[in-house]
Amino acid sequence: MADGTLAADGEFAVIDRLVSGRRQPPSVVVGPGDDAAVLTGTGATAVSTDMLVEGRHFRLDWSTPYDIGRKAIAQNASDIEAMGGRATAFVVGYGAPGDTETAQAVALSDGLWDEATRVGAGIVGGDMVAAPQWVVSVTVLGDLDGRPPVLRGGARPGDVVAVVGELGRSAAGYALWHNDIEGFEALRRRHLVPAPPYGQGAAAARAGATAMTDVSDGLLADLGHIAAASGVHVDLAVALLHDDLDALGPAAHAAGVDPRHWVLGGGEDHALVATFPDEPPPGWRAIGRVRRPAAGFGAGAVTVDGAAWTGSAGWQSY
Amino acid sequence: MADGTLAADGEFAVIDRLVSGRRQPPSVVVGPGDDAAVLTGTGATAVSTDMLVEGRHFRLDWSTPYDIGRKAIAQNASDIEAMGGRATAFVVGYGAPGDTETAQAVALSDGLWDEATRVGAGIVGGDMVAAPQWVVSVTVLGDLDGRPPVLRGGARPGDVVAVVGELGRSAAGYALWHNDIEGFEALRRRHLVPAPPYGQGAAAARAGATAMTDVSDGLLADLGHIAAASGVHVDLAVALLHDDLDALGPAAHAAGVDPRHWVLGGGEDHALVATFPDEPPPGWRAIGRVRRPAAGFGAGAVTVDGAAWTGSAGWQSY
Repeated sequence: MADGTLAADGEFAVIDRLVSGRRQPPSVVVGPGDDAAVLTGTGATAVSTDMLVEGRHFRLDWSTPYDIGRKAIAQNASDIEAMGGRATAFVVGYGAPGDTETAQAVALSDGLWDEATRVGAGIVGGDMVAAPQWVVSVTVLGDLDGRPPVLRGGARPGDVVAVVGELGRSAAGYALWHNDIEGFEALRRRHLVPAPPYGQGAAAARAGATAMTDVSDGLLADLGHIAAASGVHVDLAVALLHDDLDALGPAAHAAGVDPRHWVLGGGEDHALVATFPDEPPPGWRAIGRVRRPAAGFGAGAVTVDGAAWTGSAGWQSY
Repeated sequence: MADGTLAADGEFAVIDRLVSGRRQPPSVVVGPGDDAAVLTGTGATAVSTDMLVEGRHFRLDWSTPYDIGRKAIAQNASDIEAMGGRATAFVVGYGAPGDTETAQAVALSDGLWDEATRVGAGIVGGDMVAAPQWVVSVTVLGDLDGRPPVLRGGARPGDVVAVVGELGRSAAGYALWHNDIEGFEALRRRHLVPAPPYGQGAAAARAGATAMTDVSDGLLADLGHIAAASGVHVDLAVALLHDDLDALGPAAHAAGVDPRHWVLGGGEDHALVATFPDEPPPGWRAIGRVRRPAAGFGAGAVTVDGAAWTGSAGWQSY
């Protein structure tokens, strides 16, 4: 029955196909098929949502439906990591034209499930509707396992700023796709499917992180959120970003750009950046220091080697 | 700053405007503005999601943005009621063209908040993105207050079938709008903003409801879900629906349709329908009886006065 289109196969038959054979984690008391799903947890629930629109957040000529599913789950799971928690369940709204092949919806669902399984979670509910273009709206629920959330506002002067996961890869991949530059398959791929450092959010929380966020808008922009919420100044040392800069060197050369542009301004890799009063946990790289705000660089300022960065710093949705 | 468009005002400024001055309920530990919201609860969490697309689920020439916000919250809250719980928090994904007036987004947010406040909940997070048309994706979280969920599969032969809330009003209102029939303002209005019987889901659970769902697809279609999940036959008595039929009589006459068509087949009113071994709670109306499946009417069958209903019965998304 996955040979038809969404309109020909019909809503309920397609949903049956998307739901059947999936294995829910033990925390799911009621899965898809009733009015709502029901989950158990250890106490506080973290929740976040993202909407992805065809043509704006993904292109069906670059990404497969499977890739889109993985990316949608990854970026939502990352928001829970950034609170120090772990994703436990997702619900997904999916809009698409009626002439979409059912096999495409199945591939999207496979991608959603494969990435959810990677974080130990399940897709517990959803809604499928007719829409002029693809829209994928994911909400994630997470568990803090009894720990207080790691907010953006807790960074203190003297803290070390550290990062875990990749920086600049998605922006590099985008530039390669956009400019039709051949090769660099791993980077092109990373733009379509990020690889967040799952589990490191909880590790940071256990290590006493004072503030944390994920790098979704760009390192400088996201650190700006921490600096503003914490009332501090953050100074990065570009020399400490050499791993990322070196990894991007050849692609940056091919694209004719400064790789610092990608590492400091590129979003969507969903690395985690956090501040620590002591040593960051294993796998994290120190990249800077939290400073007391002062004349010149006040609360909310983010500088690079003690000076304002004049390149691009993140993006907005409009 | 609410004088511009989403594109001119910018994502972060608009979000600030949508979030400022809202009062969260006490269960919200962390509200909007961090990577995720954090909520406390009494144990199990119920979750459900709906996506509304302009042109398919609402029309901006019929509904105001404020109406759309109220409807989106109401239909999601109703899914939690149908499990026997109460909605505690919502997250909202909002897609719209960049030239949308910011005041329209503010009106949507006011509608979301006003309806959420009606059920004692808050909007704890969201995402705003550029899209070719309006898309509003709402996820609701709910609390079962320590009770087991009321599923669709627990109806038993001999149970009374009962309903609370309005039937057929939304379908009637749609027909009035669609056919440009003047008057009947209350019905026209009800199509745009439903009035679910908030609190009655928990009341039904406390009264021992064996199965429950909300009337979103249409009474026969939604009772069909209960009948199928429970392995029973449900028989309705049309005489017991006289309150709804009488209320719709004049509009049905004006539209030239049989009001039973609206009452039995019309969705989106978000009445609750449930099965009870004993008396239903105050405010509920008995409308039928659960029967043992038998030759002729097997598991999943829903009949009206002992016979198959030959009119329309609900709708699908494609």
